[in-house]
Amino acid sequence: MIMAYARDNIRELGAYVPGEQPVTGSVIKLNTNENPYPPAEEVLAAIRSTHGEALRRYPDPRAEPFRQVAAELHGLEPEQVIATNGGDELIRLALNVFCRPVGRDGGSGGVGIAEPSYSLYDVLAAIHDTPLCCVALTDEFELPDNFAERVLEAGCRLVIVVNPHAPSGRLEPLARLEALAGRLRGQAVLLVDEAYVDFAASDAIALLHASPPCDNVLLLRSFSKGYALAGLRFGYGLGHRDLIVALDKARDSYNTDAVSQQAAATALRHRDVAERSWHAVIAERDRMTKALTAQSYAVFPSQSNFILVRPPRDTGKGAAKIFRKLKERGIYVRYFDQEGLADKLRITIGTPEQNEALLQALAGL
Amino acid sequence: MIMAYARDNIRELGAYVPGEQPVTGSVIKLNTNENPYPPAEEVLAAIRSTHGEALRRYPDPRAEPFRQVAAELHGLEPEQVIATNGGDELIRLALNVFCRPVGRDGGSGGVGIAEPSYSLYDVLAAIHDTPLCCVALTDEFELPDNFAERVLEAGCRLVIVVNPHAPSGRLEPLARLEALAGRLRGQAVLLVDEAYVDFAASDAIALLHASPPCDNVLLLRSFSKGYALAGLRFGYGLGHRDLIVALDKARDSYNTDAVSQQAAATALRHRDVAERSWHAVIAERDRMTKALTAQSYAVFPSQSNFILVRPPRDTGKGAAKIFRKLKERGIYVRYFDQEGLADKLRITIGTPEQNEALLQALAGL
Repeated sequence: MIMAYARDNIRELGAYVPGEQPVTGSVIKLNTNENPYPPAEEVLAAIRSTHGEALRRYPDPRAEPFRQVAAELHGLEPEQVIATNGGDELIRLALNVFCRPVGRDGGSGGVGIAEPSYSLYDVLAAIHDTPLCCVALTDEFELPDNFAERVLEAGCRLVIVVNPHAPSGRLEPLARLEALAGRLRGQAVLLVDEAYVDFAASDAIALLHASPPCDNVLLLRSFSKGYALAGLRFGYGLGHRDLIVALDKARDSYNTDAVSQQAAATALRHRDVAERSWHAVIAERDRMTKALTAQSYAVFPSQSNFILVRPPRDTGKGAAKIFRKLKERGIYVRYFDQEGLADKLRITIGTPEQNEALLQALAGL
Repeated sequence: MIMAYARDNIRELGAYVPGEQPVTGSVIKLNTNENPYPPAEEVLAAIRSTHGEALRRYPDPRAEPFRQVAAELHGLEPEQVIATNGGDELIRLALNVFCRPVGRDGGSGGVGIAEPSYSLYDVLAAIHDTPLCCVALTDEFELPDNFAERVLEAGCRLVIVVNPHAPSGRLEPLARLEALAGRLRGQAVLLVDEAYVDFAASDAIALLHASPPCDNVLLLRSFSKGYALAGLRFGYGLGHRDLIVALDKARDSYNTDAVSQQAAATALRHRDVAERSWHAVIAERDRMTKALTAQSYAVFPSQSNFILVRPPRDTGKGAAKIFRKLKERGIYVRYFDQEGLADKLRITIGTPEQNEALLQALAGL
């Protein structure tokens, strides 16, 4: 019998379950929201030009050249940018910096989220052992009107809103985010997780350009979806420089590597290549929305690179059953066995050929 | 006046200060313990062979192919290996998993270290807001006989020993580590930070091969020094599978990227290239020890890729002054303005040419 050395919150933790990554290359993978198009050739060229000297030496600890490029793109100062090992690191850092580790039921100082949402928030809060306040979204996945009151009453110091929302794809309007940030100001930081924003009609950068700028807003950006670089693990945060300074203190001292820094900066410089993939995905998203609606699926309006759909109720084929049948046919979509989602499927937008194969498979079930 | 959103422990934190990384390439850089020789060509070839598809998709979340290679090398099971974003991530994970965040003066459940040591331990403990118990090493940088008693009295749940020691290079004998692990057993985990072990005469892997194996021992390995891959950010932990399972729960869900996983596995497969650099560094370390001793420097016996030296006292040239004068001449070594170290310099072993330049510069001061 081995001694349990780990803390209670870690031992009790069910780890985050990522979407399945089948090893075989022959499946149609519409389950983890990757970009169906390849990254820019220039990014591959940057990786291939890696010299031994760049590997031998420690990387730039703050990824300064990347920060410069990102700041220029967004009209901000480099001091308002933090580079992270995937967007996930930024979420962890925000929890660590702003939330008190006092046990999940231990009172105030925790994190507020709206559910359903990215399940990693919950896992990271448990790892940090901080109270989690979950507020239910409306049936249409809107933030409820009393969201700010609820999270403030719970004493939250950090509030995370994924926008566009996952797994529905809904875009919360900027005006509502601005009002939320204003309500939280002085009491909590608002982290807007914009992992999917490249596929949306608008982003929340205006909150950082406002005069005076919101001093409690952080935006999360990722290269995983929009830039087809999920394998690279690179993301970044944007916000008031005081927030960035605090996050910077809590990150591992060399949190991003030399190859990724170079690749990410190159991806931003050649953003036009990624933009073409966004337009293609958006066009296919609209086509899939119409085609699935024609097959009597309820399709939630999406501003992301996936759609949440509810199969027609009169067919007797529940979402779980369709998920399994598609998998048998080599088509992977995402099924969440949880409240509010168990009757739905999340489908990543693929290439026209992949989407067509899915439509035909669904029609033939 | 901006609201301070960050937690007190973060606001009060002086961040870890890494060694200076001058941008100009013309300096002789003997200050951050990088390998003076380039990484294996095969590693560069692995990075250059990166395909768009490996970037587009999420990486293997647990770096399974790498774990397999590392397990084979060390005669362990893959379940006894965790891949991390640099060795630093493993230290952070261990603190997070085993230590209670209760405030630095908040009682028990913290981390024990021997000082002086790698200053990041202190910073990471402060970020995690866990009590830190510092026990002074002897003047010869040995662990004191009552080390286990001291950290257990303080209620530590994790004890970190860097071996070979930094910044002295001294190797604590295996028998003493074994005794320490035995004393801590059932109460605390012993993390042996073997970041520099590739340059030492022996490692502590025997603790994991013992029968029964130590269930409270973790070994940290890094690619930064031995494999000349500091820019890559890759490390790994070895230990009892229950410890690895716990650490695995606390890491970011995709903590290492596809390019680094491939490069690190390749580096282990072509370990013979790295080994040649270890032999070269060891030969130069011995030569430098003799040469500096001949210049009346006190050189601490090192099993690492650096040496700690104390300038002769009768010259009136203190360590700080020599540090500055060398820097003026474009030679960077490391100076620590702290107790027990302020009269010494840490010098990374470079190429024969770099070492010769240093010797001549010192002789000419």
